[in-house]
Amino acid sequence: MTPLDRVAIIGVGLIGGSFALGLRAAGACRRVVGVGRDPVNMRTALERGIIDEVAASPQEAARGADLVLVATPVAQFPVVLGALAPMLEPKTLITDGGSTKRDVVTAARAALGAKSAQFVPAHPIAGAEKSGASAAKSDLLQNRRVVLTPLPENSAEALERVADCWRACGAQVSRMSPEEHDALLAAVSHLPHVLAYALVDEIASRPEAETFFAHAAGGFRDFTRIASSHPEMWRDICVANRDLLVDEIDRYSARLAKFRALVAAGEGARLEQIFAAARDSRDAWLAGQPLPARKNRE
Amino acid sequence: MTPLDRVAIIGVGLIGGSFALGLRAAGACRRVVGVGRDPVNMRTALERGIIDEVAASPQEAARGADLVLVATPVAQFPVVLGALAPMLEPKTLITDGGSTKRDVVTAARAALGAKSAQFVPAHPIAGAEKSGASAAKSDLLQNRRVVLTPLPENSAEALERVADCWRACGAQVSRMSPEEHDALLAAVSHLPHVLAYALVDEIASRPEAETFFAHAAGGFRDFTRIASSHPEMWRDICVANRDLLVDEIDRYSARLAKFRALVAAGEGARLEQIFAAARDSRDAWLAGQPLPARKNRE
Repeated sequence: MTPLDRVAIIGVGLIGGSFALGLRAAGACRRVVGVGRDPVNMRTALERGIIDEVAASPQEAARGADLVLVATPVAQFPVVLGALAPMLEPKTLITDGGSTKRDVVTAARAALGAKSAQFVPAHPIAGAEKSGASAAKSDLLQNRRVVLTPLPENSAEALERVADCWRACGAQVSRMSPEEHDALLAAVSHLPHVLAYALVDEIASRPEAETFFAHAAGGFRDFTRIASSHPEMWRDICVANRDLLVDEIDRYSARLAKFRALVAAGEGARLEQIFAAARDSRDAWLAGQPLPARKNRE
Repeated sequence: MTPLDRVAIIGVGLIGGSFALGLRAAGACRRVVGVGRDPVNMRTALERGIIDEVAASPQEAARGADLVLVATPVAQFPVVLGALAPMLEPKTLITDGGSTKRDVVTAARAALGAKSAQFVPAHPIAGAEKSGASAAKSDLLQNRRVVLTPLPENSAEALERVADCWRACGAQVSRMSPEEHDALLAAVSHLPHVLAYALVDEIASRPEAETFFAHAAGGFRDFTRIASSHPEMWRDICVANRDLLVDEIDRYSARLAKFRALVAAGEGARLEQIFAAARDSRDAWLAGQPLPARKNRE
């Protein structure tokens, strides 16, 4: 791709910072301007060479930019996009790093109006429990999936230009509707985060919490890794995707109730069968192989 | 400690194999005899130098041994200990690697009768999702906690000798009652395993399971790592500890229902507060620091 002259990053955290570093590493941009709420984080972004310059506002960052990445928690999108709308130049494309897409599309339409064709929604599926510019790295998006949820008004050219930027960072770009995206991610990302937060919260709320944690080992550590994720970001995701997330919590709770009944009844043979099928499915997924056939997909 | 002349390992898997390798690395034993159900696994154990010899039965392995480690899934303990009881020499101590302790103590009392003082129950808290002799390693127990749940009839000398063997493998040995052990582990180990198995089972049971897995990332991978654990071992744990595990599932389900209500109501501020508290607790635990004070421990 032709290198971009000027890229604006609004929210220079894990995703925003890694996107900037990825573009730079690929020689895909000349100048990166960043803006963010936390001066300490912005200084880190400058010191680490993620950005060349700190702007005072989203508008200042976006002025003259070929591409703007909005990578704040999703609840800030209406304000950020509202600030950009009046000054958005025709040459500027916007993409984003939001983990939910229906709310982002709604916010973009409302804020940008006739300019919404310049906004190409994206979700880089590459989170981590670390956040901020200090956690950003140039290869975070390498071989990671980036889902675009295009608007009908996006031109083919705008879509390709935005896709090329994500590909320059090493990502594999795919497309789907915002609804399909939010349903998939509710199940494989938002639900597990809620489950992990709930476990840590439950254990930490006990009077003898210290003793419980003292006997937790590697399994607990990995299971709860995502409970060290960014609280504000996950607040916004839970609120934005709450209808689909509640559906997933309900499905999961029903499944857990089945497990409870099997455990209570000491149904060892059935438990072993389920555990083995779960292990086989997970191992096939990790190996990049088709999932094993299930006799009783229910 | 004085090196042991002969150690018998019954079940040469991750724990049994790592215990043998740890003792060897510390120069704490001269000869290791192993026994197990799977000939392929036993050949691996021989080839990797975990054991010197394969015995045809637990009795043959235990003959003349100073120490026997029983490291099979816990449901096999009644049969294994029953086989050892008649031929158990006065000089031989037995310890185990079982993840539950009330059932193990009951099985030991029933099988060993007057010889139960020779059995010192132990749980090395050092699992992994890999199993078998191929996964064993000499440093698996390094700095890991091993909980002894002594029987009143254990002599101080027997306790110290068994503790010394675990310490020779690098473990930190502590003591508690079988009841306390099983309650702690139900919360921080058995429950998370059930939760992870339930999530994978739920997703894998959907007709569009491939698409869901295709959009899962690192968070899902780590959250479900323990769902790749040994199905038979976890079957036995769930059945052996079912009363306490059901209590934990109920506590967790109640907490999850609270989370569901907060998500459904879009209670962002409260969710962020809970997520931040969970993250702070987890991070403090990982850093080996005291848990932060909670305003409303409930």
